[in-house]
Amino acid sequence: MLGEVRRAACVAVGDELLAGDYPDSNSGAIALALSELGIVVERFVVLGDRKDDLERVFYDLCARYQLVVATGGIGPTLDDVTREAAAAAAGVPLERNEAVLASLRESYARRNRPMPESNERQAWFPRGAQVMANAIGTAPGFRVWIDGGTLCVLPGPPHEMKDMLRRELLPWLRSTCGQGPGIVRKTFYMLGLPESAFSDRAGAWMARGAVPLMGVTAHTGILKVTLLGKGESVEGAERLVSARAAEVRERFAEEIYSEDDPRPGAAVLRVLGERGLTLAVAESCTGGLVAELLTDVAGASRVFKSGWVTYANEAKTAALGVDAALIARCGAVSAEVAEAMALGARARCGADVAVSITGIAGPDGGSPEKPVGLVWFALATPSGVRSFEQRFPPVDRASIRRYAAHVALNLVRLHGR
Amino acid sequence: MLGEVRRAACVAVGDELLAGDYPDSNSGAIALALSELGIVVERFVVLGDRKDDLERVFYDLCARYQLVVATGGIGPTLDDVTREAAAAAAGVPLERNEAVLASLRESYARRNRPMPESNERQAWFPRGAQVMANAIGTAPGFRVWIDGGTLCVLPGPPHEMKDMLRRELLPWLRSTCGQGPGIVRKTFYMLGLPESAFSDRAGAWMARGAVPLMGVTAHTGILKVTLLGKGESVEGAERLVSARAAEVRERFAEEIYSEDDPRPGAAVLRVLGERGLTLAVAESCTGGLVAELLTDVAGASRVFKSGWVTYANEAKTAALGVDAALIARCGAVSAEVAEAMALGARARCGADVAVSITGIAGPDGGSPEKPVGLVWFALATPSGVRSFEQRFPPVDRASIRRYAAHVALNLVRLHGR
Repeated sequence: MLGEVRRAACVAVGDELLAGDYPDSNSGAIALALSELGIVVERFVVLGDRKDDLERVFYDLCARYQLVVATGGIGPTLDDVTREAAAAAAGVPLERNEAVLASLRESYARRNRPMPESNERQAWFPRGAQVMANAIGTAPGFRVWIDGGTLCVLPGPPHEMKDMLRRELLPWLRSTCGQGPGIVRKTFYMLGLPESAFSDRAGAWMARGAVPLMGVTAHTGILKVTLLGKGESVEGAERLVSARAAEVRERFAEEIYSEDDPRPGAAVLRVLGERGLTLAVAESCTGGLVAELLTDVAGASRVFKSGWVTYANEAKTAALGVDAALIARCGAVSAEVAEAMALGARARCGADVAVSITGIAGPDGGSPEKPVGLVWFALATPSGVRSFEQRFPPVDRASIRRYAAHVALNLVRLHGR
Repeated sequence: MLGEVRRAACVAVGDELLAGDYPDSNSGAIALALSELGIVVERFVVLGDRKDDLERVFYDLCARYQLVVATGGIGPTLDDVTREAAAAAAGVPLERNEAVLASLRESYARRNRPMPESNERQAWFPRGAQVMANAIGTAPGFRVWIDGGTLCVLPGPPHEMKDMLRRELLPWLRSTCGQGPGIVRKTFYMLGLPESAFSDRAGAWMARGAVPLMGVTAHTGILKVTLLGKGESVEGAERLVSARAAEVRERFAEEIYSEDDPRPGAAVLRVLGERGLTLAVAESCTGGLVAELLTDVAGASRVFKSGWVTYANEAKTAALGVDAALIARCGAVSAEVAEAMALGARARCGADVAVSITGIAGPDGGSPEKPVGLVWFALATPSGVRSFEQRFPPVDRASIRRYAAHVALNLVRLHGR
């Protein structure tokens, strides 16, 4: 009986996770999705592909939590033992599901490929389990009851897991245990504001007991601000969050670049695209990162025309026409050179707007006057060119480059607003 | 008594981990480091900042494992409760460590800042605990004995955790429980080989029971091949691995680009730098990613001269001199245009070598003749220009771009060898 599921645990299965090859990202995604149903995930466990360990942990967690969601270890190979462990924990044998087997065979036949014998394993489930279809891969998931709890097993590959979560598990949970206390979440992505300045301006909204609860995380210049509202019903929570969201939109109108897409490049393309403006980029210390963040977005070519990565001084002269004497006089990291780069890029490809970045990403190359972390930016538009500097904390090369790329994108976005 | 520690567990503490803000990467890094001492981590657990949960899990895990390594929750704020939970699990009170307190005050004094009252919390430890110094942040770690097991607590921020692990925990473990059975690991990074072709050529080395054990993971064209040798002693394991490593180097001489640095850009810069060659890049579908992967490496400017991101067709003409009629006749994704881009880039900045990339990253823009995933590459050198195409699986835009960038970098690397 799931009637009152409110507490849950996640289990991620795979030797490669324990070996440190990559971290478990599935459990976090599941916890986030379950939280919208009012289900609180209190624990993640990562285990290797060992049947005895899995069996014991499934059993123990089902005794403590009403819902346990496991991912991984249901592939076709012999080292995938999650189905065996689930059956053992439930005290039932594995049984072949003829309907699943037929559909596995059919999916191979459609692609004119013989089904490897090993794939038949994916048609075996603990007796009494409910199968969850896999619309993307070959391994179906399943739900099985272990004492007081329900164990739901999803595939390990994140895109298969997410698809099955959305199509199968969440609808089933919603129908079985209801929506629960309403939990509504709302996110804003902002640029152009240090975290401390955000906190000051947000004031009491950020208090620990505030309703709705506001959280903020900062990453190389991007703030992710989350509102979390809890109420007796979804509608109640929704009202709480909507009211505060409207205030946030007003107070941070300039800084918010998106409420759903964290990519600043997408915001720049949208803003310029709406006004029919085109863009060029001239990069030195960011080395192609700004262009990369823009072209990472499908359809970028409508706005983004051309980029230059003029890393060497001679390249600034040869490719963008920056006067070599100017570089010698002012240094490559200067207002003058940043402006010449932006003007050169704009002139060369006929874009409406051009942005340039030149700075010292480190770890070497700094001096007392021009320390690591100093970056000059310029923006060239039909009405002229302007430049400004920023000094980033000299944390590390990658962070300085990313900070600088975000500032450059924000400069363009604010121009386009 | 740690004398025979061979099995361990990791615990990561933090509400933000359970909320899915980011995955726990600390436990994997710790497991990898412990494996070199012959200690096998069998389980990771992620918990929120709740004292009762933590106390219970610390207690249970110390009963099952001789060593438990926890990270996070030892900061100065009230929601950091790991130290309280550890003391409760050990059945001892917290006590103030005067030496630690003095050194905390001193470190603030050195920076001419008053120590916030809340930081005094970081000088409290479970009675009988051994303190581990924090060379980077303010929160010291500690070791405490809970029944049969040892609980070691490290800070949550990964760079602080890694530093304390290396300076404090590993030396202590080595001195306390010895090296254990020798475990030696060796890694190779390869480009230019699909995973299946690698397996075929590796043959019996890849067998499940092979000694040393060989593992391979593939990611957008990069293969990470690991040799794992276990022996009675480190020397024995070292011999096993060295012998096989020499064979691997011979059989995959062309494909191995590094044995320590996974960044293909670093390999390209090293190879060209050794021969005194300079490089230019002309990118269309990769949109700056190749330049970004090169300039991500400090000191790139010795080799990397200039990059062009000619995303729009007009940009290919305006910036690189590609004949507009040629683009109209052959299409932007063609051998002819790839070659013209590489030749144009090479001529414009006087680099020795230029590589170009033009393809269809999708999700739109494909046709039956030129499907999503088709990419043309060209390499221009003093002896002329050559081009070739590759068809990548149309998984997603980001993967196709990354695949293509890695192929382009490998093309340059092989030229420079």
